Amino acid sequence: MNRRISSISIHSPLPPTRRSSYATSVASRRNGNISRRLSSLSTAEHGEALDPETTAADETVAEEIAEIKRYEDFTTIDWVQDAARENQRRKARKVERAGFFEREGRLGWRRKAWEAYDAGQGWIVVTLIGIAIGMNAAFLNIVTEWLSDVKLGYCTTAFYLNESFCCWGAESGCPEWHRWSSFWPLNYFLYIYFAGLLAFCSAHLVKSYAPYAAGSGISEIKCIIAGFVMKGFLGFWTLLIKTLAMPLSIASGLSVGKEGPSVHYAVCTGNVISRLFDKYRRNAAKTREILSACAAAGVAVAFGSPIGGVLFSLEEMSNYFPLKTMWRSYYCCLVATAVLAAMNPFRTGQLVMFTVRYDRSWHFFELPFYILLGVFGGLYGAFVMKWHLRMQAFLATAILCYPNMFLRIDMTESMEILFLECEGGHDYDELCDKENRWVVVFTLFCATLLRTLLVILSYGCKVPAGIFVPSMAIGASFGRMVGILVQALYEAFPDAAFFAACEPDVPCITPGTYAFLGAGAALSGIMHITVSVVVILFELTGALTYILPSMIVVGVTKAVADRCGKGGIADRMIWFNGFPFLDNKEEHTFGVPVSTTMTSKPTTLPAQGLTIRDVERILAETKYQGFPVVDDPHTKILLGYIGRTELRYALERAKRQQMVRANARCFFAPHDGPRTAMTPSATMPSVSFDDMGDTAGSTSVDFSKFVDPTPLAVHPQLPLETVMELFKKLGPRVILVEYHGRLTGLVTVKDCLKYQFQAEAHENLKDDSAGQDKLWGVIRQVAEWTGKKLGTYSGGRLRLGEGMSPPPSAGLEGSGRADDERASDGGDVELEDRRHVPR
Amino acid sequence: MNRRISSISIHSPLPPTRRSSYATSVASRRNGNISRRLSSLSTAEHGEALDPETTAADETVAEEIAEIKRYEDFTTIDWVQDAARENQRRKARKVERAGFFEREGRLGWRRKAWEAYDAGQGWIVVTLIGIAIGMNAAFLNIVTEWLSDVKLGYCTTAFYLNESFCCWGAESGCPEWHRWSSFWPLNYFLYIYFAGLLAFCSAHLVKSYAPYAAGSGISEIKCIIAGFVMKGFLGFWTLLIKTLAMPLSIASGLSVGKEGPSVHYAVCTGNVISRLFDKYRRNAAKTREILSACAAAGVAVAFGSPIGGVLFSLEEMSNYFPLKTMWRSYYCCLVATAVLAAMNPFRTGQLVMFTVRYDRSWHFFELPFYILLGVFGGLYGAFVMKWHLRMQAFLATAILCYPNMFLRIDMTESMEILFLECEGGHDYDELCDKENRWVVVFTLFCATLLRTLLVILSYGCKVPAGIFVPSMAIGASFGRMVGILVQALYEAFPDAAFFAACEPDVPCITPGTYAFLGAGAALSGIMHITVSVVVILFELTGALTYILPSMIVVGVTKAVADRCGKGGIADRMIWFNGFPFLDNKEEHTFGVPVSTTMTSKPTTLPAQGLTIRDVERILAETKYQGFPVVDDPHTKILLGYIGRTELRYALERAKRQQMVRANARCFFAPHDGPRTAMTPSATMPSVSFDDMGDTAGSTSVDFSKFVDPTPLAVHPQLPLETVMELFKKLGPRVILVEYHGRLTGLVTVKDCLKYQFQAEAHENLKDDSAGQDKLWGVIRQVAEWTGKKLGTYSGGRLRLGEGMSPPPSAGLEGSGRADDERASDGGDVELEDRRHVPR
Repeated sequence: MNRRISSISIHSPLPPTRRSSYATSVASRRNGNISRRLSSLSTAEHGEALDPETTAADETVAEEIAEIKRYEDFTTIDWVQDAARENQRRKARKVERAGFFEREGRLGWRRKAWEAYDAGQGWIVVTLIGIAIGMNAAFLNIVTEWLSDVKLGYCTTAFYLNESFCCWGAESGCPEWHRWSSFWPLNYFLYIYFAGLLAFCSAHLVKSYAPYAAGSGISEIKCIIAGFVMKGFLGFWTLLIKTLAMPLSIASGLSVGKEGPSVHYAVCTGNVISRLFDKYRRNAAKTREILSACAAAGVAVAFGSPIGGVLFSLEEMSNYFPLKTMWRSYYCCLVATAVLAAMNPFRTGQLVMFTVRYDRSWHFFELPFYILLGVFGGLYGAFVMKWHLRMQAFLATAILCYPNMFLRIDMTESMEILFLECEGGHDYDELCDKENRWVVVFTLFCATLLRTLLVILSYGCKVPAGIFVPSMAIGASFGRMVGILVQALYEAFPDAAFFAACEPDVPCITPGTYAFLGAGAALSGIMHITVSVVVILFELTGALTYILPSMIVVGVTKAVADRCGKGGIADRMIWFNGFPFLDNKEEHTFGVPVSTTMTSKPTTLPAQGLTIRDVERILAETKYQGFPVVDDPHTKILLGYIGRTELRYALERAKRQQMVRANARCFFAPHDGPRTAMTPSATMPSVSFDDMGDTAGSTSVDFSKFVDPTPLAVHPQLPLETVMELFKKLGPRVILVEYHGRLTGLVTVKDCLKYQFQAEAHENLKDDSAGQDKLWGVIRQVAEWTGKKLGTYSGGRLRLGEGMSPPPSAGLEGSGRADDERASDGGDVELEDRRHVPR
Repeated sequence: MNRRISSISIHSPLPPTRRSSYATSVASRRNGNISRRLSSLSTAEHGEALDPETTAADETVAEEIAEIKRYEDFTTIDWVQDAARENQRRKARKVERAGFFEREGRLGWRRKAWEAYDAGQGWIVVTLIGIAIGMNAAFLNIVTEWLSDVKLGYCTTAFYLNESFCCWGAESGCPEWHRWSSFWPLNYFLYIYFAGLLAFCSAHLVKSYAPYAAGSGISEIKCIIAGFVMKGFLGFWTLLIKTLAMPLSIASGLSVGKEGPSVHYAVCTGNVISRLFDKYRRNAAKTREILSACAAAGVAVAFGSPIGGVLFSLEEMSNYFPLKTMWRSYYCCLVATAVLAAMNPFRTGQLVMFTVRYDRSWHFFELPFYILLGVFGGLYGAFVMKWHLRMQAFLATAILCYPNMFLRIDMTESMEILFLECEGGHDYDELCDKENRWVVVFTLFCATLLRTLLVILSYGCKVPAGIFVPSMAIGASFGRMVGILVQALYEAFPDAAFFAACEPDVPCITPGTYAFLGAGAALSGIMHITVSVVVILFELTGALTYILPSMIVVGVTKAVADRCGKGGIADRMIWFNGFPFLDNKEEHTFGVPVSTTMTSKPTTLPAQGLTIRDVERILAETKYQGFPVVDDPHTKILLGYIGRTELRYALERAKRQQMVRANARCFFAPHDGPRTAMTPSATMPSVSFDDMGDTAGSTSVDFSKFVDPTPLAVHPQLPLETVMELFKKLGPRVILVEYHGRLTGLVTVKDCLKYQFQAEAHENLKDDSAGQDKLWGVIRQVAEWTGKKLGTYSGGRLRLGEGMSPPPSAGLEGSGRADDERASDGGDVELEDRRHVPR
């Protein structure tokens, strides 16, 4: 297998004539397949050793290009190329090692240690990240608690303690904990003042230092994990600001949860830490694996639910989830949760505030109510998503959400209360008081409505906000309401056949479980996740007997939610923002070949004949992310594909190092010998440029090392669905369309998405959007009026309604937006006639 | 979008001349893209309506071919083609519906009902399957319990009741339950007699009626879900026999569990039921979705762990698991578990025998012991797998496993006992007796060893056997042993700093939890699954506090197991049996292009020039599963690909219906007009043959409808890894290799696997297999001797050691086998020189 060609033929100092320089270049380029002719079916040797020096130089160039690509904003990475590069690197390392063993024999241990480090790098990185996330979570919990209580008073023994730690052991309050004053209106004022201050600080921090820290971030992270590049979204500043601003905004009482943002800061942590390791700095695809694991850990620490985190990452975040990533996520969640457990931020041994245990079981007759809860969850999700998307456009620039600053809502605590059973001596806020039952029911109903409204408003705010816990809180209020009603029903007709399963003298209905199931339903309804919700609920309660009810509720929610529209809120936001994201949850039937949607006349580079000036002109005039290389513009025999980044890099390097003339000729394929006998070039985009010294000052530049000779190419009649599968599952940046060897077109994810939106819009035309449009118009008018008034009062600081424009993050270009609004615009979806613009 | 071409041009009764017949054929074939010329970039209309009649005929043919393919033994299905066909069908339906609405207006409701049924078919099927699986599980549980007790005695009030139901409510025994006699040696004899009888019946049933019902079946199901076809493996007979034989073999006391087989019977159920629905009869790929869901339900009912089932299916069974399948699995598990819960087979409200609750928490100082358990699990798995594979070859034909018939091991019960806490008044078998501690430890140690041995032997038996519960039982014994030792340690040094976390006067160490964690470790070690095990454990106990320990133990197990070898027992069996299965858990680095492993000179069919006789000769002489169609044998311009099945079908149909002559010319591509201007044919393998009437008795047959004009084709220099990704993720049967439009080769999964095994064997050559080989030699000799002796005694019924041959299911061909033995054969792996034999 490993026959090596004599290295002399490569290293012999050949005279630097053009001809031999090309021979050398070709020899070093064709890694591993030097003498295989395409049609010869030879028994030629293959797998020759790589020349280590060339490899090293190649690697440097590859790293430089990878580094550049890492920061090309709003582009997608090429998974296929990244994987190929990683394989190349491994192969090189293997060969290098083999050579090393031969040469250095005894010095092996250092080498071995280094290799062990290299192999274990992934695990080291994940461990570090897990620890960091766990500690960050503990820190956040502690700070949030403290800030929440600072609104009410302070601890005389130590200012940094919150009320419960200050009065540790005492039942209710203690002398060490001082209220700010004894005069309640002053307290109330101080409370409002602190809350406002906290919210303002949070918003200001975000606005001034890290705009990306705003919002939940889940949809963006989803795109990033799918391969999209958003510069700075996962940067250090975002992490820092998010970590600081999150406790502020939660403590301020805004109707936001810490679970979504906790995913964001976890992923930031992962990105910041993994960047310190060269394996991940170099390989964007590998980094995505780590980011998936981080997202999992983020959920794990937020809910104290490690397995739920893994499943959340699997179900929601990752479009492609190999088992290796699952295992990484598992480990990362484990470490993060263990660290959090060891830090024990609540000093109760619990990981989150609202764990609860049920010791009673459920009855089959409760099923209809469970189904009701499921329906509620589905409808809630659909409702919030519909209105949230509109509010998003509407309130994008309103930094502070005026109304709900004045409401004291600590959702985690209220959820804990709602979940609890009534028996066992505790009675919170008269929830279990049977006298006031109807008052409680009414209160809960109002709470459900009000909170839904607040969620719609708050989520659009530009503060670090989550939607997990608020949704759960809403579900919990609704569920508790249903539970109390069922209990009332039972107490009214204790002997009805319907309640036959109830044993006498034992409480039969536990309203707390309804709250618990309602919370799950709402979470599932808003995020469109199923298994993860069940596991998260299960991990919150450990209630073995409630798995089936949870599954039923979530199942119904899912069914209802699917009726009401596609995708959870994260997916909607992705469409809304127009990120190029192919959702792999959807199945489409277009029944058209790829040639329908492809760009039929892509800008191509002929293998020879262009000058440096031509190339520069093409680079300047087009915005395409890459160019197919063809034999000549007429026959269009496809030879390869060169990325814009590579081309620009090569061009600049050539100009910098060799000072080539502007009329130097460019070659994009080796040009020795007739085409038919030409061997296809190397398996990899060869990226070494180091033998270009030969051509210094000469009249030609060879770019062929930067050309990927094996881009994915398909038949023009291949069904579009299959091409989309290729994009989803392999993740190339571009797929070329080739018919009998000739380039006929080029297709990107955006092309597919455009076709998809077009087709969907076409189908949805007859939708029932007329009535909604009317309502929307009214709201818009009211909002404009309010905005004007408010603007007058607030001195212009609150610019409600000015927005109507998409949020800043939609900077891309609106071409991908095809949400409800778009479809309800009526008429045709106008798609800009720039079929293959931004790739 | 939906401009329709005037249907007259298709339906007009043209004179049946050759020319016009072709025109018609071409027109009807090019579904949806009639006038798009490849190079013309026209703005031509597309998406024309399909002609409903042609579509119907097409569908019939497609169904017939799908039906044939369904039963082609030991082949793989083509996911890409299947998906394309399904899309085609949907598209056709849509168009048909549009036309229908126009024409029939008022009769809409029947149509609508039918459509709703068609859309909901998947859910109906899954519901039915879930119910069937749940009922079957309940039935199995009840029968098994009864049979187990019949060995001991009978119920006088009703013979069909087992002991606990007979004496319902009574504490220990009751007068209604009679032992067979009052003389204990007779009882002992009867016990052995019944056990033997049951085991014999089980083995006999399996051997005579359904050989596929033997063993666990998980590895085969894994292959089937990945697209492999094994006729009868999931058939009705297998289901029936498995259902009957499983309680027999479990009740007989064989060291087998019901969890693995429960997956098998669940999948059988799914297959049998889904076959009744035409959507699934037609589409093999869709059916695989359902089978994944069934596998999940199988685990769900076996462990009473619905979410664990979903995850098991995800982690272990499915190589490609889209979220849609997850959702199906979720629903199927839910239905099956709910049915089981409603049937309540144990009358305890529990779904399985060994649920348990812990109310105490763990301490950080217990971590080292948890890690110990993890290490044990990993080593156990590695050990069993290594020896099991050898025993598999060794004992393949030994129908009854002689020695362990005499051992009374009811693992589920023993596990329940081992899991329990000692406090609370119950003391089982003196497990908690502190006096006899060392006796108990020794007993448990022996039990661990003995059971491991029995598992190795039993699993090779040809009775329906599982390995889940036996492994868990082994882990539980070991864990309990460790737990007792830790307890002893604590009691010896209660004041040591190590045990500082223990509170005085409260039991600190719970040996039951060690048993529980040990069970998880062993299960994870043998199956190499992680998240599923944690969830299953969690669902068995609901012990919220034990998630972290479970995760740690399973994590350590996984790390150790990965050190000891790749893949769980199911994967090992797959390699051993040589199924063509690309494991998507593995990552490979070959660094070679696909041309290294491709078949360079595939048998091709020229587009024209062959006679019927030639085609028949090619079919007779080769065994290839398909043939690329090329322009002509010299230029080899790739035109398409025709499957063997399609070719044979078309040939037979042509001969049957039109009585073509043997020297009639065959056309595999439309031959009107020059090639360059030719439009590429339809997006789909057009399969209508219905206009061949025109050519009846004529001298030519047009096969072009059966040719897939858009087979996946790749560049010869594409890295092999990328090609393997294509196989894994898209699942085509074959990938063609094309260079500048010319066919240069063809690659199948088997080609990739061969290269992989070769490369791996090459690497593993220096393995430490010498010592093991020696041991293996000794065992082999002993076995041969024993076999001879036993053969003498048993009159040849027990043919131990005759085997050494692979088990019957390895009938394929040994080419894929590259397990340890292979590698340890030393020297080179000889690979038969039949590069692309069975595709």
